[in-house]
Amino acid sequence: MSQNKPKAVILLSGGLDSATCLAIAKSEGFEPVALSFDYGQRHNAELAASRRIAEAFAVTDHRVLRLQPGAMGGSALTDTTIAVPTEASDGIPVTYVPARNTIFLSFALGLAEVIVADAIFIGVNAVDYSGYPDCRPEFIEAFERMANLATKAGVEGHHMKIHTPLIALTKADIIRTGLRLGVDYALTVSCYQADIDGRACGACDSCRLRRKGFVDAGVPDPTRYQA
Amino acid sequence: MSQNKPKAVILLSGGLDSATCLAIAKSEGFEPVALSFDYGQRHNAELAASRRIAEAFAVTDHRVLRLQPGAMGGSALTDTTIAVPTEASDGIPVTYVPARNTIFLSFALGLAEVIVADAIFIGVNAVDYSGYPDCRPEFIEAFERMANLATKAGVEGHHMKIHTPLIALTKADIIRTGLRLGVDYALTVSCYQADIDGRACGACDSCRLRRKGFVDAGVPDPTRYQA
Repeated sequence: MSQNKPKAVILLSGGLDSATCLAIAKSEGFEPVALSFDYGQRHNAELAASRRIAEAFAVTDHRVLRLQPGAMGGSALTDTTIAVPTEASDGIPVTYVPARNTIFLSFALGLAEVIVADAIFIGVNAVDYSGYPDCRPEFIEAFERMANLATKAGVEGHHMKIHTPLIALTKADIIRTGLRLGVDYALTVSCYQADIDGRACGACDSCRLRRKGFVDAGVPDPTRYQA
Repeated sequence: MSQNKPKAVILLSGGLDSATCLAIAKSEGFEPVALSFDYGQRHNAELAASRRIAEAFAVTDHRVLRLQPGAMGGSALTDTTIAVPTEASDGIPVTYVPARNTIFLSFALGLAEVIVADAIFIGVNAVDYSGYPDCRPEFIEAFERMANLATKAGVEGHHMKIHTPLIALTKADIIRTGLRLGVDYALTVSCYQADIDGRACGACDSCRLRRKGFVDAGVPDPTRYQA
Protein backbone atom coordinates (compact mmCIF):
# COMPACT_ATOMS: atom_id res chain seq x y z
CA MET A 1 0.00 0.00 0.00
CA SER A 2 0.87 3.63 -0.26
CA GLN A 3 2.34 3.90 3.25
CA ASN A 4 5.75 3.02 1.90
CA LYS A 5 5.76 5.45 -0.98
CA PRO A 6 7.42 8.83 -0.53
CA LYS A 7 4.93 11.68 -0.70
CA ALA A 8 5.17 14.46 -3.25
CA VAL A 9 3.22 17.70 -3.48
CA ILE A 10 1.95 18.16 -7.05
CA LEU A 11 0.81 21.60 -8.17
CA LEU A 12 -2.29 20.72 -10.16
CA SER A 13 -3.87 23.50 -12.18
CA GLY A 14 -6.11 21.30 -14.29
CA GLY A 15 -4.21 22.03 -17.48
CA LEU A 16 -2.45 19.66 -19.83
CA ASP A 17 0.98 20.17 -18.29
CA SER A 18 0.11 19.67 -14.63
CA ALA A 19 -1.97 16.57 -15.45
CA THR A 20 1.06 15.09 -17.20
CA CYS A 21 3.21 16.06 -14.25
CA LEU A 22 0.90 14.19 -11.88
CA ALA A 23 1.07 11.11 -14.10
CA ILE A 24 4.87 11.28 -14.12
CA ALA A 25 5.06 11.65 -10.33
CA LYS A 26 2.88 8.56 -9.91
CA SER A 27 4.92 6.61 -12.46
CA GLU A 28 8.06 7.50 -10.49
CA GLY A 29 6.59 5.91 -7.37
CA PHE A 30 5.45 8.96 -5.42
CA GLU A 31 2.24 9.17 -3.47
CA PRO A 32 0.79 12.42 -4.82
CA VAL A 33 -0.75 15.10 -2.65
CA ALA A 34 -2.34 17.51 -5.13
CA LEU A 35 -2.52 21.25 -4.47
CA SER A 36 -4.71 23.59 -6.51
CA PHE A 37 -5.52 27.27 -6.10
CA ASP A 38 -8.72 29.17 -6.50
CA TYR A 39 -7.30 32.64 -7.03
CA GLY A 40 -10.05 34.33 -8.98
CA GLN A 41 -8.51 33.19 -12.22
CA ARG A 42 -10.48 33.93 -15.33
CA HIS A 43 -10.31 30.31 -16.42
CA ASN A 44 -11.93 28.83 -13.32
CA ALA A 45 -13.01 25.80 -15.36
CA GLU A 46 -9.43 24.69 -14.70
CA LEU A 47 -10.35 23.99 -11.09
CA ALA A 48 -13.16 21.64 -12.06
CA ALA A 49 -10.68 19.99 -14.41
CA SER A 50 -8.17 19.59 -11.57
CA ARG A 51 -10.79 17.70 -9.59
CA ARG A 52 -11.55 15.36 -12.51
CA ILE A 53 -7.84 14.71 -13.08
CA ALA A 54 -7.17 14.05 -9.40
CA GLU A 55 -10.05 11.58 -9.38
CA ALA A 56 -8.84 9.87 -12.57
CA PHE A 57 -5.46 9.32 -10.94
CA ALA A 58 -6.97 8.16 -7.64
CA VAL A 59 -5.41 11.02 -5.68
CA THR A 60 -6.79 10.66 -2.18
CA ASP A 61 -5.48 14.00 -0.88
CA HIS A 62 -6.36 16.95 -3.12
CA ARG A 63 -6.32 20.35 -1.47
CA VAL A 64 -7.81 23.45 -3.04
CA LEU A 65 -6.57 26.63 -1.46
CA ARG A 66 -8.76 29.66 -1.97
CA LEU A 67 -6.92 32.95 -2.15
CA GLN A 68 -8.71 36.20 -1.60
CA PRO A 69 -9.64 37.79 -4.94
CA GLY A 70 -7.09 40.47 -5.63
CA ALA A 71 -4.35 38.62 -3.75
CA MET A 72 -2.67 38.25 -7.11
CA GLY A 73 -3.26 40.98 -9.64
CA GLY A 74 -1.93 42.87 -12.58
CA SER A 75 -2.74 40.22 -15.18
CA ALA A 76 -5.25 39.48 -17.90
CA LEU A 77 -5.84 36.18 -16.12
CA THR A 78 -6.98 37.79 -12.87
CA ASP A 79 -8.26 41.18 -14.00
CA THR A 80 -11.22 41.00 -16.36
CA THR A 81 -10.60 44.60 -17.46
CA ILE A 82 -7.48 43.40 -19.29
CA ALA A 83 -8.26 41.46 -22.49
CA VAL A 84 -6.64 38.09 -23.13
CA PRO A 85 -4.64 38.53 -26.33
CA THR A 86 -5.34 36.23 -29.26
CA GLU A 87 -2.11 36.90 -31.08
CA ALA A 88 1.44 36.12 -30.06
CA SER A 89 3.20 39.08 -28.46
CA ASP A 90 6.82 40.11 -28.09
CA GLY A 91 8.23 39.76 -24.59
CA ILE A 92 6.26 38.77 -21.53
CA PRO A 93 2.52 38.85 -22.28
CA VAL A 94 -0.26 40.49 -20.23
CA THR A 95 -1.42 37.03 -19.13
CA TYR A 96 1.63 36.89 -16.83
CA VAL A 97 0.50 36.92 -13.15
CA PRO A 98 3.14 38.60 -10.98
CA ALA A 99 4.87 36.11 -8.68
CA ARG A 100 2.28 33.40 -9.32
CA ASN A 101 4.60 30.41 -9.38
CA THR A 102 6.59 31.84 -6.46
CA ILE A 103 3.39 32.03 -4.41
CA PHE A 104 2.19 28.57 -5.49
CA LEU A 105 5.57 26.98 -4.78
CA SER A 106 5.75 28.72 -1.39
CA PHE A 107 2.47 27.15 -0.27
CA ALA A 108 3.64 23.82 -1.71
CA LEU A 109 6.81 24.19 0.34
CA GLY A 110 4.88 24.78 3.55
CA LEU A 111 2.59 21.83 2.81
CA ALA A 112 5.52 19.58 1.95
CA GLU A 113 7.13 20.37 5.28
CA VAL A 114 3.90 19.66 7.19
CA ILE A 115 3.21 16.33 5.46
CA VAL A 116 6.92 15.40 5.48
CA ALA A 117 7.53 15.29 1.74
CA ASP A 118 10.88 15.95 0.08
CA ALA A 119 9.47 16.50 -3.39
CA ILE A 120 7.37 19.13 -5.14
CA PHE A 121 6.30 18.67 -8.76
CA ILE A 122 5.45 21.64 -10.96
CA GLY A 123 4.61 21.36 -14.65
CA VAL A 124 6.53 24.37 -15.86
CA ASN A 125 7.88 24.28 -19.38
CA ALA A 126 10.38 26.57 -21.03
CA VAL A 127 10.03 25.35 -24.62
CA ASP A 128 6.44 25.70 -25.85
CA TYR A 129 5.39 28.32 -23.30
CA SER A 130 4.15 31.87 -22.93
CA GLY A 131 7.50 33.34 -21.90
CA TYR A 132 6.72 33.75 -18.22
CA PRO A 133 9.92 34.33 -16.21
CA ASP A 134 8.81 31.97 -13.45
CA CYS A 135 8.75 29.00 -15.81
CA ARG A 136 12.47 29.07 -16.53
CA PRO A 137 15.01 26.59 -15.13
CA GLU A 138 17.07 29.37 -13.52
CA PHE A 139 14.02 30.46 -11.52
CA ILE A 140 13.31 26.91 -10.36
CA GLU A 141 16.93 26.37 -9.32
CA ALA A 142 16.91 29.61 -7.34
CA PHE A 143 13.62 28.67 -5.69
CA GLU A 144 14.93 25.25 -4.68
CA ARG A 145 18.06 26.80 -3.21
CA MET A 146 15.96 29.31 -1.24
CA ALA A 147 13.56 26.57 -0.12
CA ASN A 148 16.35 24.60 1.44
CA LEU A 149 17.35 27.63 3.52
CA ALA A 150 13.76 28.53 4.44
CA THR A 151 12.62 25.47 6.28
CA LYS A 152 13.28 23.50 9.39
CA ALA A 153 13.61 20.40 7.22
CA GLY A 154 16.25 22.12 5.12
CA VAL A 155 18.18 23.24 8.19
CA GLU A 156 18.03 19.70 9.54
CA GLY A 157 19.55 18.30 6.38
CA HIS A 158 16.56 17.09 4.38
CA HIS A 159 16.84 18.18 0.78
CA MET A 160 13.69 19.51 -0.81
CA LYS A 161 13.69 18.91 -4.54
CA ILE A 162 11.55 20.83 -7.02
CA HIS A 163 10.80 18.38 -9.84
CA THR A 164 10.15 19.89 -13.26
CA PRO A 165 9.90 16.86 -15.55
CA LEU A 166 8.41 18.87 -18.41
CA ILE A 167 10.76 21.82 -18.41
CA ALA A 168 12.77 20.86 -21.49
CA LEU A 169 10.07 18.99 -23.44
CA THR A 170 8.15 20.22 -26.45
CA LYS A 171 4.37 20.27 -26.09
CA ALA A 172 4.22 17.29 -28.46
CA ASP A 173 6.61 15.32 -26.24
CA ILE A 174 4.60 16.24 -23.14
CA ILE A 175 1.46 14.91 -24.83
CA ARG A 176 3.19 11.70 -25.97
CA THR A 177 4.51 11.13 -22.44
CA GLY A 178 1.09 11.74 -20.90
CA LEU A 179 -0.70 9.43 -23.32
CA ARG A 180 1.79 6.68 -22.55
CA LEU A 181 1.02 7.18 -18.83
CA GLY A 182 -2.73 7.14 -19.31
CA VAL A 183 -3.61 10.83 -19.15
CA ASP A 184 -7.03 11.58 -20.64
CA TYR A 185 -6.45 15.04 -22.05
CA ALA A 186 -10.19 15.46 -22.62
CA LEU A 187 -10.33 16.08 -18.85
CA THR A 188 -7.85 18.95 -18.96
CA VAL A 189 -8.45 22.65 -19.59
CA SER A 190 -5.59 24.85 -20.77
CA CYS A 191 -7.44 27.83 -22.25
CA TYR A 192 -6.82 31.23 -20.63
CA GLN A 193 -10.49 32.10 -21.11
CA ALA A 194 -12.37 28.81 -21.11
CA ASP A 195 -16.12 29.06 -20.68
CA ILE A 196 -17.89 27.76 -17.61
CA ASP A 197 -18.12 24.29 -19.16
CA GLY A 198 -14.40 24.21 -19.83
CA ARG A 199 -14.69 24.76 -23.59
CA ALA A 200 -11.61 26.43 -25.02
CA CYS A 201 -11.48 29.65 -27.04
CA GLY A 202 -8.98 28.19 -29.49
CA ALA A 203 -7.36 31.58 -29.96
CA CYS A 204 -5.31 32.45 -26.88
CA ASP A 205 -1.63 31.68 -26.51
CA SER A 206 -2.30 28.63 -24.37
CA CYS A 207 -4.83 27.23 -26.86
CA ARG A 208 -2.46 27.79 -29.77
CA LEU A 209 0.42 26.01 -28.00
CA ARG A 210 -1.84 23.14 -27.01
CA ARG A 211 -3.43 22.67 -30.43
CA LYS A 212 -0.03 22.70 -32.14
CA GLY A 213 1.15 20.11 -29.61
CA PHE A 214 -1.53 17.63 -30.65
CA VAL A 215 -0.84 18.29 -34.34
CA ASP A 216 2.93 17.81 -33.86
CA ALA A 217 2.37 14.67 -31.77
CA GLY A 218 0.20 13.30 -34.59
CA VAL A 219 -2.68 12.43 -32.28
CA PRO A 220 -6.29 13.58 -32.23
CA ASP A 221 -6.97 16.78 -30.25
CA PRO A 222 -9.67 15.94 -27.67
CA THR A 223 -10.14 19.60 -26.69
CA ARG A 224 -13.70 20.86 -26.70
CA TYR A 225 -13.76 24.24 -28.39
CA GLN A 226 -16.35 26.98 -28.12
CA ALA A 227 -18.63 27.14 -31.15
CA MET B 1 3.86 65.14 -1.84
CA SER B 2 4.40 61.45 -1.92
CA GLN B 3 4.23 61.10 -5.71
CA ASN B 4 7.97 61.49 -5.96
CA LYS B 5 8.86 58.99 -3.30
CA PRO B 6 9.74 55.44 -4.28
CA LYS B 7 7.21 52.95 -3.00
CA ALA B 8 8.14 50.09 -0.70
CA VAL B 9 6.06 47.12 0.42
CA ILE B 10 6.36 46.72 4.20
CA LEU B 11 5.39 43.43 5.79
CA LEU B 12 3.54 44.66 8.88
CA SER B 13 2.61 42.05 11.46
CA GLY B 14 1.78 44.46 14.25
CA GLY B 15 4.74 43.42 16.36
CA LEU B 16 7.63 45.47 17.67
CA ASP B 17 9.99 44.55 14.84
CA SER B 18 7.73 45.27 11.89
CA ALA B 19 6.61 48.59 13.42
CA THR B 20 10.25 49.61 13.68
CA CYS B 21 10.81 48.44 10.12
CA LEU B 22 7.98 50.67 8.91
CA ALA B 23 9.47 53.64 10.75
CA ILE B 24 12.87 52.98 9.16
CA ALA B 25 11.39 52.68 5.66
CA LYS B 26 9.65 56.04 6.10
CA SER B 27 12.81 57.63 7.49
CA GLU B 28 14.69 56.42 4.41
CA GLY B 29 12.25 58.27 2.15
CA PHE B 30 10.03 55.44 0.98
CA GLU B 31 6.28 55.70 0.57
CA PRO B 32 5.13 52.63 2.50
CA VAL B 33 2.48 50.23 1.27
CA ALA B 34 1.79 47.98 4.24
CA LEU B 35 0.88 44.32 3.83
CA SER B 36 -0.53 42.22 6.67
CA PHE B 37 -1.90 38.69 6.75
CA ASP B 38 -4.84 37.19 8.52
CA TYR B 39 -3.79 33.54 8.52
CA GLY B 40 -5.67 32.20 11.47
CA GLN B 41 -2.77 33.04 13.73
CA ARG B 42 -3.31 32.47 17.38
CA HIS B 43 -2.25 35.99 18.21
CA ASN B 44 -4.83 37.76 16.05
CA ALA B 45 -4.53 40.86 18.25
CA GLU B 46 -1.46 41.51 16.10
CA LEU B 47 -3.73 42.41 13.21
CA ALA B 48 -5.53 45.09 15.20
CA ALA B 49 -2.10 46.33 16.24
CA SER B 50 -0.99 46.49 12.60
CA ARG B 51 -3.93 48.78 11.85
CA ARG B 52 -3.08 51.10 14.74
CA ILE B 53 0.57 51.26 13.68
CA ALA B 54 -0.29 51.91 10.03
CA GLU B 55 -2.56 54.73 11.17
CA ALA B 56 0.07 56.18 13.49
CA PHE B 57 2.50 56.34 10.57
CA ALA B 58 -0.11 57.77 8.18
CA VAL B 59 0.11 54.79 5.85
CA THR B 60 -2.58 55.42 3.23
CA ASP B 61 -2.37 51.98 1.61
CA HIS B 62 -2.58 49.11 4.10
CA ARG B 63 -3.69 45.78 2.69
CA VAL B 64 -4.76 42.85 4.83
CA LEU B 65 -4.74 39.58 2.97
CA ARG B 66 -6.85 36.85 4.44
CA LEU B 67 -5.55 33.33 3.94
CA GLN B 68 -7.83 30.36 4.29
CA PRO B 69 -7.45 28.82 7.76
CA GLY B 70 -5.20 25.81 7.36
CA ALA B 71 -3.30 27.34 4.45
CA MET B 72 -0.34 27.39 6.80
CA GLY B 73 -0.14 24.70 9.40
CA GLY B 74 2.02 22.57 11.59
CA SER B 75 2.76 25.22 14.21
CA ALA B 76 1.74 26.20 17.70
CA LEU B 77 0.89 29.61 16.22
CA THR B 78 -1.71 28.25 13.81
CA ASP B 79 -2.81 25.02 15.48
CA THR B 80 -4.47 25.50 18.87
CA THR B 81 -3.90 21.83 19.72
CA ILE B 82 -0.17 22.57 20.03
CA ALA B 83 0.73 24.50 23.20
CA VAL B 84 2.88 27.63 23.00
CA PRO B 85 5.96 26.86 25.06
CA THR B 86 6.87 29.15 27.94
CA GLU B 87 10.46 28.03 28.23
CA ALA B 88 13.31 28.37 25.79
CA SER B 89 13.85 25.24 23.72
CA ASP B 90 16.79 23.79 21.86
CA GLY B 91 16.65 24.03 18.09
CA ILE B 92 13.72 25.34 16.10
CA PRO B 93 10.66 25.71 18.38
CA VAL B 94 7.10 24.52 17.74
CA THR B 95 6.04 28.11 17.13
CA TYR B 96 7.81 27.91 13.76
CA VAL B 97 5.26 28.13 10.92
CA PRO B 98 6.49 26.19 7.87
CA ALA B 99 7.39 28.49 4.98
CA ARG B 100 5.69 31.51 6.58
CA ASN B 101 8.18 34.17 5.55
CA THR B 102 8.54 32.57 2.12
CA ILE B 103 4.79 32.87 1.62
CA PHE B 104 4.62 36.41 3.00
CA LEU B 105 7.55 37.58 0.87
CA SER B 106 6.06 35.92 -2.21
CA PHE B 107 2.86 37.94 -1.89
CA ALA B 108 4.93 41.05 -1.19
CA LEU B 109 6.86 40.33 -4.36
CA GLY B 110 3.70 40.08 -6.44
CA LEU B 111 2.33 43.28 -4.89
CA ALA B 112 5.62 45.11 -5.42
CA GLU B 113 5.57 44.22 -9.09
CA VAL B 114 1.95 45.38 -9.48
CA ILE B 115 2.48 48.73 -7.74
CA VAL B 116 5.93 49.18 -9.34
CA ALA B 117 8.05 49.11 -6.20
CA ASP B 118 11.67 47.98 -6.08
CA ALA B 119 11.78 47.51 -2.33
CA ILE B 120 10.32 45.12 0.21
CA PHE B 121 10.93 45.61 3.94
CA ILE B 122 10.73 42.71 6.37
CA GLY B 123 11.56 43.00 10.06
CA VAL B 124 13.41 39.74 10.44
CA ASN B 125 16.10 39.54 13.05
CA ALA B 126 18.77 36.90 13.56
CA VAL B 127 20.11 38.05 16.93
CA ASP B 128 17.34 38.14 19.57
CA TYR B 129 15.01 35.74 17.77
CA SER B 130 13.28 32.39 18.08
CA GLY B 131 15.67 30.54 15.78
CA TYR B 132 13.36 30.33 12.77
CA PRO B 133 15.32 29.39 9.63
CA ASP B 134 13.47 31.95 7.51
CA CYS B 135 14.80 34.84 9.61
CA ARG B 136 18.44 34.28 8.68
CA PRO B 137 20.44 36.44 6.26
CA GLU B 138 21.25 33.47 4.02
CA PHE B 139 17.53 32.86 3.52
CA ILE B 140 16.86 36.50 2.68
CA GLU B 141 19.73 36.59 0.18
CA ALA B 142 18.47 33.43 -1.51
CA PHE B 143 14.93 34.84 -1.64
CA GLU B 144 16.14 38.08 -3.21
CA ARG B 145 18.11 36.19 -5.83
CA MET B 146 15.10 34.03 -6.63
CA ALA B 147 12.81 37.08 -6.72
CA ASN B 148 14.92 38.72 -9.38
CA LEU B 149 14.55 35.65 -11.59
CA ALA B 150 10.83 35.24 -10.89
CA THR B 151 9.43 38.47 -12.17
CA LYS B 152 8.94 40.43 -15.33
CA ALA B 153 10.55 43.40 -13.59
CA GLY B 154 13.59 41.29 -12.74
CA VAL B 155 13.90 40.03 -16.30
CA GLU B 156 13.65 43.59 -17.57
CA GLY B 157 16.52 44.69 -15.38
CA HIS B 158 14.83 46.22 -12.33
CA HIS B 159 16.44 45.00 -9.18
CA MET B 160 14.11 44.04 -6.35
CA LYS B 161 15.75 44.55 -3.00
CA ILE B 162 14.64 42.86 0.21
CA HIS B 163 15.46 45.30 3.01
CA THR B 164 16.15 43.78 6.43
CA PRO B 165 17.26 46.76 8.51
CA LEU B 166 16.87 44.86 11.79
CA ILE B 167 18.60 41.65 10.88
CA ALA B 168 21.83 42.26 12.81
CA LEU B 169 20.46 44.40 15.65
CA THR B 170 19.83 43.34 19.22
CA LYS B 171 16.29 43.78 20.50
CA ALA B 172 17.53 46.71 22.60
CA ASP B 173 19.00 48.41 19.51
CA ILE B 174 15.78 47.84 17.59
CA ILE B 175 13.86 49.53 20.42
CA ARG B 176 16.29 52.46 20.61
CA THR B 177 16.06 52.94 16.85
CA GLY B 178 12.28 52.82 16.90
CA LEU B 179 11.98 55.28 19.78
CA ARG B 180 14.24 57.70 17.94
CA LEU B 181 11.92 57.42 14.93
CA GLY B 182 8.76 57.92 16.95
CA VAL B 183 7.42 54.38 17.29
CA ASP B 184 4.89 54.07 20.11
CA TYR B 185 5.55 50.51 21.25
CA ALA B 186 2.39 50.55 23.33
CA LEU B 187 0.58 50.06 20.00
CA THR B 188 2.48 46.89 19.16
CA VAL B 189 1.74 43.27 20.08
CA SER B 190 4.51 40.69 20.00
CA CYS B 191 3.10 37.93 22.22
CA TYR B 192 2.54 34.52 20.59
CA GLN B 193 -0.66 34.11 22.59
CA ALA B 194 -1.93 37.62 23.29
CA ASP B 195 -5.52 37.88 24.48
CA ILE B 196 -8.23 39.48 22.42
CA ASP B 197 -7.34 42.91 23.80
CA GLY B 198 -3.70 42.48 22.84
CA ARG B 199 -2.43 41.88 26.39
CA ALA B 200 0.72 39.78 26.45
CA CYS B 201 1.26 36.53 28.33
CA GLY B 202 4.74 37.58 29.46
CA ALA B 203 5.98 33.99 29.29
CA CYS B 204 6.37 32.94 25.65
CA ASP B 205 9.62 33.23 23.74
CA SER B 206 8.50 36.41 21.99
CA CYS B 207 7.47 38.06 25.29
CA ARG B 208 10.76 37.11 26.92
CA LEU B 209 12.82 38.57 24.06
CA ARG B 210 10.73 41.73 24.05
CA ARG B 211 10.83 42.30 27.78
CA LYS B 212 14.58 41.78 27.88
CA GLY B 213 14.92 44.28 25.02
CA PHE B 214 13.26 47.05 27.02
CA VAL B 215 15.35 46.21 30.07
CA ASP B 216 18.59 46.20 28.05
CA ALA B 217 17.63 49.45 26.30
CA GLY B 218 17.02 51.01 29.72
CA VAL B 219 13.59 52.32 28.82
CA PRO B 220 10.17 51.64 30.32
CA ASP B 221 8.32 48.61 28.93
CA PRO B 222 4.91 49.85 27.71
CA THR B 223 3.62 46.33 27.14
CA ARG B 224 0.25 45.56 28.69
CA TYR B 225 0.50 42.18 30.35
CA GLN B 226 -2.32 39.80 31.26
CA ALA B 227 -3.14 39.81 34.96
